[in-house]
Amino acid sequence: MEKMDIRLDYLDRALPGDFTPEQAARCKTLFLKHLSLAAHRFYAGKIQVVPKVGAFGFNWFNVWYTPGVSQVSTTIRDNPEASYELSSRGNLVAVVSDSTRVLGDGDVGPSGGLGVMEGKAFLMKYLGGVDAVPLCIDSRDSKGRNDPDAIIEFVKRCQPSFGAVNLEDISQPNCYKVLDVLREACEIPVWHDDAQGTGCVTLAGLLNALKVAGRDMAKARMVFYGAGASNTTIVRLILSAGADPANVLMFDSHGALGRHRDDIKADERFYRKWEICERTNPRGVRTMEEGIRGADVLIALSKPGPDTVKPEWIRAMAPKSIVFTCANPVPEIYPHAAKEAGAYVVATGRGDFPTQGNNSLGFPGILKGALLVRARKITDAMAITAARSLAGFAEQKGLSPDYIIPSMDETEVFPREAADVAMQAIQDGVARVTLPKEEIRKRAEADIMYSRNLMDSMMAGGFVRPPPQEMLDESLRWAVDQIRRG
Amino acid sequence: MEKMDIRLDYLDRALPGDFTPEQAARCKTLFLKHLSLAAHRFYAGKIQVVPKVGAFGFNWFNVWYTPGVSQVSTTIRDNPEASYELSSRGNLVAVVSDSTRVLGDGDVGPSGGLGVMEGKAFLMKYLGGVDAVPLCIDSRDSKGRNDPDAIIEFVKRCQPSFGAVNLEDISQPNCYKVLDVLREACEIPVWHDDAQGTGCVTLAGLLNALKVAGRDMAKARMVFYGAGASNTTIVRLILSAGADPANVLMFDSHGALGRHRDDIKADERFYRKWEICERTNPRGVRTMEEGIRGADVLIALSKPGPDTVKPEWIRAMAPKSIVFTCANPVPEIYPHAAKEAGAYVVATGRGDFPTQGNNSLGFPGILKGALLVRARKITDAMAITAARSLAGFAEQKGLSPDYIIPSMDETEVFPREAADVAMQAIQDGVARVTLPKEEIRKRAEADIMYSRNLMDSMMAGGFVRPPPQEMLDESLRWAVDQIRRG
Repeated sequence: MEKMDIRLDYLDRALPGDFTPEQAARCKTLFLKHLSLAAHRFYAGKIQVVPKVGAFGFNWFNVWYTPGVSQVSTTIRDNPEASYELSSRGNLVAVVSDSTRVLGDGDVGPSGGLGVMEGKAFLMKYLGGVDAVPLCIDSRDSKGRNDPDAIIEFVKRCQPSFGAVNLEDISQPNCYKVLDVLREACEIPVWHDDAQGTGCVTLAGLLNALKVAGRDMAKARMVFYGAGASNTTIVRLILSAGADPANVLMFDSHGALGRHRDDIKADERFYRKWEICERTNPRGVRTMEEGIRGADVLIALSKPGPDTVKPEWIRAMAPKSIVFTCANPVPEIYPHAAKEAGAYVVATGRGDFPTQGNNSLGFPGILKGALLVRARKITDAMAITAARSLAGFAEQKGLSPDYIIPSMDETEVFPREAADVAMQAIQDGVARVTLPKEEIRKRAEADIMYSRNLMDSMMAGGFVRPPPQEMLDESLRWAVDQIRRG
Repeated sequence: MEKMDIRLDYLDRALPGDFTPEQAARCKTLFLKHLSLAAHRFYAGKIQVVPKVGAFGFNWFNVWYTPGVSQVSTTIRDNPEASYELSSRGNLVAVVSDSTRVLGDGDVGPSGGLGVMEGKAFLMKYLGGVDAVPLCIDSRDSKGRNDPDAIIEFVKRCQPSFGAVNLEDISQPNCYKVLDVLREACEIPVWHDDAQGTGCVTLAGLLNALKVAGRDMAKARMVFYGAGASNTTIVRLILSAGADPANVLMFDSHGALGRHRDDIKADERFYRKWEICERTNPRGVRTMEEGIRGADVLIALSKPGPDTVKPEWIRAMAPKSIVFTCANPVPEIYPHAAKEAGAYVVATGRGDFPTQGNNSLGFPGILKGALLVRARKITDAMAITAARSLAGFAEQKGLSPDYIIPSMDETEVFPREAADVAMQAIQDGVARVTLPKEEIRKRAEADIMYSRNLMDSMMAGGFVRPPPQEMLDESLRWAVDQIRRG
C-alpha cells in the first residue's frame, strides 16, 4: 500500500493488490465516507461569506454601510431591477432543500442536507464562478408532514435576494408541485437540479453514447428504471430531444408505467408520472424481463446498488447496449459487472469511476449562463441546449465507449456551456439583458478563473490548511480493515 | 482641496475651507452617498460565498460531495446537533429583513434592503469573524400588507441552516411580534439589531456618559425622543440596568407616553409601547417643553435631522447634559449645534462624526460570543453584559466627554465582548457548550484575525481591486458642487 497523497490521485494504487474489483469499489466508498466525516469536522463545514470589496480604511464603513448605503437603498426602491447591479444577487443562487431525499440517504432531517448543499455551493463557486447559499429548511406542517406549499412560500418570499434558485433533494411527489408552481410564479429561474440537472447531463451522455454505438435517437429502444423526479424529467427531456415515446418503457417499484396503472392515475400529486403512463408503453408491457429484451438503452436512477440492476437484464439487451446506472452513493450495478454482462457503454454518477454523468457538469454552467443574462426562467430548451453543448464538447475531443461526456477537470467546458445557455435564454425571450455570446463566454471564464485563483491563493496563503496526513492514512487503514473483516 | 486618498482618512481636510460646519456635514453625507452608489455598481455588491476547504485535487469532489458526504448526512440525521460541527452553520448568521424600515429610508421594497444587509454581512465578517447571509424577503400578504407571521414562518423554516438570526429593519409594530415570537419559538438566538443592538450600544455609551458627567443612573432624569423599536428597547434595557422609571419620559409623534395614551392602549400590536406607558411618566407630563426642563439625558432615535431636535430643548436641560441623537443617515441635530446649545456629552450613530454609538460595536461581538457556545438565545442579561463590556473597555482607556465608547477601529474590543457574552450565556443556561472564557476570547480573536488577514491578502493579491481614483474625485466634486448651489 502506498502512502495516500493529499491530491488523492492515486487512490486505486493505494488499495491492496489482492482486492477484487468489487472489494476495491466498496473500499473506496468507505474511504471517501470516512475521510469526508473527518474532514468536515476538521474544517467545521465548507463555506464562508467573504467581502468582495475592500476595507481600504475605516471610513469605508460609511460607504458600505450607513450613511452612504442609503443611496443604494433608495435607488433600488425606485427601480428594483437595479438590485442586479448594486447588490450581489446577480451572481447569487439559493440552494433550497427540505432534506427529504438527500442523495441515496432519503430523509435526513432538516439540517441533514447541509453537507450536500454546501458541497453544491463549493462546486458552484469552483466550477461556475457562482456564489451559492445553502438553505436547508424545515418543510413540515403542524402534523409533521412535509408540505410542498411551505417550500413554495419560502422560495417566493426570499427571491428578492437571489438571482436564481436551485431546488435540491426534495422527495416525491412534493418535488413536482414545488418546481412546476415556482417555475411559473417566480421572477427568477428556479432549477430543480435532481430533475432538470440530471436530465440535462444524462441527455448529453446519451446523445454521444448513441453515436458511439451507432444508434439513432428516434429508433433506439429505451428502458428507464426508477420513476423518481430525476428519471421522469430525463424521459421528458429525451422525448423533447427526439426519442419516440413508443420505444420508451419506464419502471417504478410496482412495475412498468402505462395506462393500466390506476394507482398512479388515482393520486393527482403524481401528475408527472401519469403523463408518462399515457405517452409511453403502447404495447402494455408489464415486467422488466419482457421490457428489457432487445433494448438498446437502460437508464437506471433508482436505489443504491450494487445489486439493484441484475446482470441478466443487461445480458438480455441488444448488442452494443448503453447502460447508465446513476444511483448515489453506490450505482445500481458496478461498472465492471455491467461490462462483464455485455454492456458497451457504461456511465455512473460517481466521480471515482470512469464516465461520470455527474450533475456537476451541468448546473454550474447553466446557472452561470442564466445569471449573466439575468434570465427570468430556465426553459427546457435551455436545458437541452446545455446537453448539446456538453455533448459537442466531448465529441470535439473524440468519442469512445469510455468517453462520452466531458470529465469534471475539463473545466473549459463551463464557460462554453454558459454562453450557449445564455444565447438560448435570449432566443426564448426569458433574458432581461442581451449580450454577445463571446462576451458571456469571457465573463464566465473570468469569474471561474477568479474563483479558482482565489482558492489557490487561499491555500498558498494558509487560509485553507491541508488536512493532516494522518487523517488520510487513518481513513484508508480503516476502510481496508472493514473490507478485510468482510 | 486635497486629492482624495483611497483610505478616505482626510475627508474633512479635503472639503473647502470656507464651508460652515453644517455645510461640511451635509457635504460629507452627499459625498458618501454618491461614492457608495458608484462603488456598489463597480463591485456589483459586496459579498461572495467562498469555500473554506481546499480543492487539493479533483478527487476531493468525492469527499466534499457524493459519495463521501453521505456520511455527513447520516451522522447529522442521527444526531442533529452534529450539524454544528460538520457544517458551516455554527458560524453562520441569517440577516433577515423585509426592508420596510431601512435606516432612515423607510420602506424601500423587498430588494431595497440588500445594500444594508450586505453591509451587515461585511461588518460581521470583518469585525466579528462571523459569516452572514443577507435574506431580504417579501413579507406581503395577498392584499399587499406586510405580514409579521410571514417573517415568523420564514425564520422558523430556515433555522436548521443557521447558528443565529439577526432581524433587521422591520417596521413597527410588526417588529415586536416577530422578535418576541421568534425568541421563544426558535432553537437558535434571534437578535433584532435595531432594537437590542442599538439598546446595548446606547446603554454602553450612557453608562460612561453618566460617569463623565458625574451622574448616577438611578437618579438621572431621562427623556427619550422617538418610540420606535430601537428606543422602546433601549428604555427596557436601561430600566433593567438600574434607571428609575419615575425619572423616565418617552415621546412619540403624538406626545408623551403615559397612562393617558388610549390610542396606544387600543392597538394591542403596540403592547411594548403600552408597557412603557404604564411604567413611566407618573406625573402625567404631556409636552416636550415641560418634559425636557432640567433633564440630564436626551436620547433621540426618531427621524433624520438635522432640525428634528431643537437647540432650545437642549438649552432647557440640566448642566452637563447628555445628548444622544442617533437617527440615520443624518442625526436629529448636528453635534456641533448640540454642543453650541450647551450639551456636555454628544453621541450620534454616524461613523464620520466623533463618538459613534454605532450598532457595529455590538452585534459582531455579541453574535460571535453566542455562536461560540452555540447559544439557544440571547437574553437581555447578555445584551446588558455586552454593554458593560464595551463601557469597561472604554473606561480602561480613559473617559472624556468625547470618548465614552470604543471606536470601531479599536478592534480588540470584539473578542473581549464575545467572551463576556458567552460567559453570560453559560450563566443564564442558554449555552449548548461550556468553554473557559479565555478559550472563547482566543477563538474569537483568531477568527477575527483570519477575516482581516484574508481581506488584506485579497487586496494584496488583486482579488479586491481598489476603486478608480476618479470615482473618489468625481464624488467629491459632485458633493461640493451640490453644496455650492445651495
